[in-house]
Amino acid sequence: MGSQEKVETIESREWYLAAHAPEGVPTSDHLKLRTFSISLADESIHENHVVVKILYISVDPYLRAIMTGIDDGLCLPQFQINQVIFSYGIGRVIRSKESNYSGGDFVPSPVMPVAEYSMVQPSQLRFKNIDPGPGIPFTDYLSTLGVAGYAAWVALKMIGNPKPGSNVFISAAAGGVGMHAGQLAKLKGCNVIGSTGTDEKVELLKEIGYDDAFNYNASESFDAALSKYCPDGIDFYLDNVGGKMLEAVLNHVNHKAHIVLCGMISQYNKVWKERDGIRNLLNMVGKEVKMEGYLMSSLDHRFGDFTKEMETYIKQGKIISKHVIYNGIESFLESLGSMFSSSNIGKVLIQSRNKI
Amino acid sequence: MGSQEKVETIESREWYLAAHAPEGVPTSDHLKLRTFSISLADESIHENHVVVKILYISVDPYLRAIMTGIDDGLCLPQFQINQVIFSYGIGRVIRSKESNYSGGDFVPSPVMPVAEYSMVQPSQLRFKNIDPGPGIPFTDYLSTLGVAGYAAWVALKMIGNPKPGSNVFISAAAGGVGMHAGQLAKLKGCNVIGSTGTDEKVELLKEIGYDDAFNYNASESFDAALSKYCPDGIDFYLDNVGGKMLEAVLNHVNHKAHIVLCGMISQYNKVWKERDGIRNLLNMVGKEVKMEGYLMSSLDHRFGDFTKEMETYIKQGKIISKHVIYNGIESFLESLGSMFSSSNIGKVLIQSRNKI
Repeated sequence: MGSQEKVETIESREWYLAAHAPEGVPTSDHLKLRTFSISLADESIHENHVVVKILYISVDPYLRAIMTGIDDGLCLPQFQINQVIFSYGIGRVIRSKESNYSGGDFVPSPVMPVAEYSMVQPSQLRFKNIDPGPGIPFTDYLSTLGVAGYAAWVALKMIGNPKPGSNVFISAAAGGVGMHAGQLAKLKGCNVIGSTGTDEKVELLKEIGYDDAFNYNASESFDAALSKYCPDGIDFYLDNVGGKMLEAVLNHVNHKAHIVLCGMISQYNKVWKERDGIRNLLNMVGKEVKMEGYLMSSLDHRFGDFTKEMETYIKQGKIISKHVIYNGIESFLESLGSMFSSSNIGKVLIQSRNKI
Repeated sequence: MGSQEKVETIESREWYLAAHAPEGVPTSDHLKLRTFSISLADESIHENHVVVKILYISVDPYLRAIMTGIDDGLCLPQFQINQVIFSYGIGRVIRSKESNYSGGDFVPSPVMPVAEYSMVQPSQLRFKNIDPGPGIPFTDYLSTLGVAGYAAWVALKMIGNPKPGSNVFISAAAGGVGMHAGQLAKLKGCNVIGSTGTDEKVELLKEIGYDDAFNYNASESFDAALSKYCPDGIDFYLDNVGGKMLEAVLNHVNHKAHIVLCGMISQYNKVWKERDGIRNLLNMVGKEVKMEGYLMSSLDHRFGDFTKEMETYIKQGKIISKHVIYNGIESFLESLGSMFSSSNIGKVLIQSRNKI
């Protein structure tokens, strides 16, 4: 008050939830972009806060499930009306009033605002400091070393432990989780088969090491495809899709098979009573099958071990990642919708228009 | 040939499968009784065989599932047309040409013919020798110490291990498995709630130690009943029924709940594509639930430990068993059908008309 000095102000855009979307693919009725300003004047930055420039945002299927306003499955907190959308992302600190962070720091966060800039409290965003050096592509921090890679690692190393030679099947195999899970299963010496939605993605899967893969959109039936591609049955199934594929798998499981439920993208656009009912769970008795779901949020304590192992694999060229990169924060709605159309090859990311 | 000496011959009746029953409750079109003779003349008894007089037969839900002629769930060998029906039973040896067995021996078998007498090979029937003494009612060998008790013990001691104070829910709670499982869970210090099909059985469950129970036939909905009787959610569910109750339970599970699938009696009279579809398996992700099925046949190696422990409980009065006893082998069809009507209180047995 009374100060006349000129301060730098930046404009930023951010996505927020305008309306819950209980069913269907979210549209611009549900997700809107708004513009706001951040003053970079020292007195405008709150204590223990930093201003972060967002570089990359990871677009993951679970985000869809927390825009419904209804807790009917994932049990994660739902986005509230007017709340800024957040996702796993990487930013760079440009102003800091928090002693652990300085301008220039690269900071990944599991709850980064889907925005261009933001003033945030690092502890609330669970910032970590990383030093992206040579040998690891920047985008790998969002895929192999991010949510997708960790989900795959947890499924194959913590929840399940498929044995060498066992028959592993993975759905949504060319998605972020499936891509990494297949490679981890190959590193364990398993026979790995994947399902995906286009012939082009089938080829990608073979390139990255899957023993074989099929295009479920081109299959007579899921059952016929599994008979053909998993003739010796399935010992371990990493389920990313749920619904009819899970039901089909239950007709092809071997004795003592293990099914790990990572997510169910085929079901997220429906309220639970409209979801596909699985009619053959009795097979779990006859085949003594174990099925279990997990959330990464409760398994944070192994993130360090995960990072160390995956960094080694990346440097050795043992794990590679494919990305679909959308440009500009404004592409969030489009990139989210794309996950429901079999159109993406690899991990979906947004690269903001900010320079690194 | 040429011999004129008089030999003793006994008449026996046995049940056999006349036609497979893929759907509905089996009828006299599917299960028929036939009469045959057994000569007790020494030369008529095959080497390594005994003639056994059947005393009791255990009537268990899984039997229904192996009369369909279709392997769609339990993965147990189906009864073949003309094959004699077998079940867990106890008999007494009356003639023997097998050195390990003598006349008078009491012999339980998991695959006893549903007959009055039979000439059998003890090793094929996996006979054991028991010495029913004072302190253990004879019928307990068919329930607490038989299939039902073992299924309950395996669920609570081998597959699952609910902690003291945890909330345990058991369906078909007044059936053979449920009755024993509830008592075992109480011995572990759990809070135990059961569902059953009549008010009379609700009272029985409270008598044998269940903390509370509800009559699902009198409930507004399974969901409403679970909200009322399991207000703190469910940590451990022993599923004996499948279908809509399993779906309802999945809406009431706590974080890290464990669901053990023993059987699905509500689904056995339908082919798999007609069975109730479970639409809310995504809850298994959000609540990090583990669900697993088991078959006792693959867990035989612990039967000795089980027997020892349960005999102790019986003698201490810590586990009691209720029975519904049908009289005469001819009642097999009726007793089997009774399991699909909520009419039985306790373990269903058949007592043959043979004197012990």
